[in-house]
Amino acid sequence: MKLGYLGPIGSFTYEAAVAFGERLGSDVKLVALSSFADIIESVESGAIDGGMLPVENSTYGAVATAMDLLLGLQKTTVCGEYVLNIEHCLLSSGNSADEIRYVYSHEQALEQCRNFFHREHPRIELVSCTSTSQACKLALAGGDYHGAVASVKAADMYSLNVLARNIQDNPCNQTRFLYIGKAMTRPTGNDKTSIAFAFSEDHAGCLYEVFKIFAEMNINMTRVESRPAKQIMGEYIFFIDFIGHQDQPEILAVLSAIQAQTAWLKIFGSYEKA
Amino acid sequence: MKLGYLGPIGSFTYEAAVAFGERLGSDVKLVALSSFADIIESVESGAIDGGMLPVENSTYGAVATAMDLLLGLQKTTVCGEYVLNIEHCLLSSGNSADEIRYVYSHEQALEQCRNFFHREHPRIELVSCTSTSQACKLALAGGDYHGAVASVKAADMYSLNVLARNIQDNPCNQTRFLYIGKAMTRPTGNDKTSIAFAFSEDHAGCLYEVFKIFAEMNINMTRVESRPAKQIMGEYIFFIDFIGHQDQPEILAVLSAIQAQTAWLKIFGSYEKA
Repeated sequence: MKLGYLGPIGSFTYEAAVAFGERLGSDVKLVALSSFADIIESVESGAIDGGMLPVENSTYGAVATAMDLLLGLQKTTVCGEYVLNIEHCLLSSGNSADEIRYVYSHEQALEQCRNFFHREHPRIELVSCTSTSQACKLALAGGDYHGAVASVKAADMYSLNVLARNIQDNPCNQTRFLYIGKAMTRPTGNDKTSIAFAFSEDHAGCLYEVFKIFAEMNINMTRVESRPAKQIMGEYIFFIDFIGHQDQPEILAVLSAIQAQTAWLKIFGSYEKA
Repeated sequence: MKLGYLGPIGSFTYEAAVAFGERLGSDVKLVALSSFADIIESVESGAIDGGMLPVENSTYGAVATAMDLLLGLQKTTVCGEYVLNIEHCLLSSGNSADEIRYVYSHEQALEQCRNFFHREHPRIELVSCTSTSQACKLALAGGDYHGAVASVKAADMYSLNVLARNIQDNPCNQTRFLYIGKAMTRPTGNDKTSIAFAFSEDHAGCLYEVFKIFAEMNINMTRVESRPAKQIMGEYIFFIDFIGHQDQPEILAVLSAIQAQTAWLKIFGSYEKA
């Protein structure tokens, strides 16, 4: 089977794809794609069998682009999740961090290390690019004045020196990935379901009615996230993850109660909890 | 009085500061600062009297960095809000969009125009920088192969040509700014209050209890946003905006009921609704 990730090789999504791919089986072939949209389109079209999408980080929060793209899933569902520990390093082809003037990385990676650079290297200019692995390529091409924020594995892969380890501001830095594909999942007893919904009006009062459904059925929500509905300011789409599998009768009852309270409801899928 | 904004001159925060400054009075002097953190630190230290912070956009959602920084407010409060219509344009010193290879802008501005570039100019590389006005400087320095996403006003200010107008993917694109300062606000009858809180455990069930307070008091929430608590994955801080002023007795009652349900509660301030 073909599993897509945000390339080039060496990105954190690559690491998540390697680790998750090992669980899926021995015939997994990793496919590097150039954007989150490409990953989703390739799974939808059947060009690949599954894809890994980062959806939230414990420091920076929601990966907004990836979450909005999930709303476009039609033939595919969320079939799994994976949580990766993220250890950022400062890499360069040079030997001294003091010589570095520009540091490249994915915007989220730079955000996760913002205080480190502010405190230790205030004169370095942070430049965002499409991925941590593209950052390694730019640092390698740029020479001693250029650096990248990426993983130890990426340093190895691109023959860069590790000038500082664990530079993220939050010592416990994790990214949660969703696995999207076309597999039918069965309840394992340790599952989560991910949904999104919107209201036609007065979202906040309506949100209370939805929360009441979960409270009365004693079902634990693990994540509540709002995203703009992209119409006028103040209209939102709500993303909720909760414990349980949609094949369980009580979860089916929750979903149909939510459907009755909302203008539209999208069920992304049920999957084994990481 | 001195009002800080994210500089240099010509950014959308500058436009918001000009418009909001006119309401504050005739003696307002605008001060360009280099980051959201600088704006907050300068208001806290008394170096300036107030600052404008973008907190959400109707396309891209929360401005995560600005929201996290609000948690550090100590001597200052949120005293006002302003909603700006955002019209992005493609600017360059050249005359043809087809010649452009690199387009600079603030990451949020690029995100708001992502589909436009994907559809009309897939070969242009999007490069994020610190502000739309810095993007204009880079485009000007780079010549015909370089462009910027910024406002019509910025084109004028930096003598760049407007090659395309209204290029944002969402025709209704607005950014909401908060005004932070040390002013005491009084209820106007048309107010909002902004708060954040966290729970010591089981946040989702507890969130229902907080929502219940609003529902039972018949108070309308206008925004619900979660941000990671930056400890382990799955722990969140909740940001809520609601209708009413903390000097009203019923709002005071709501706030003390919320305090009783949460591990900590921060009241950012009450202010006249935009």
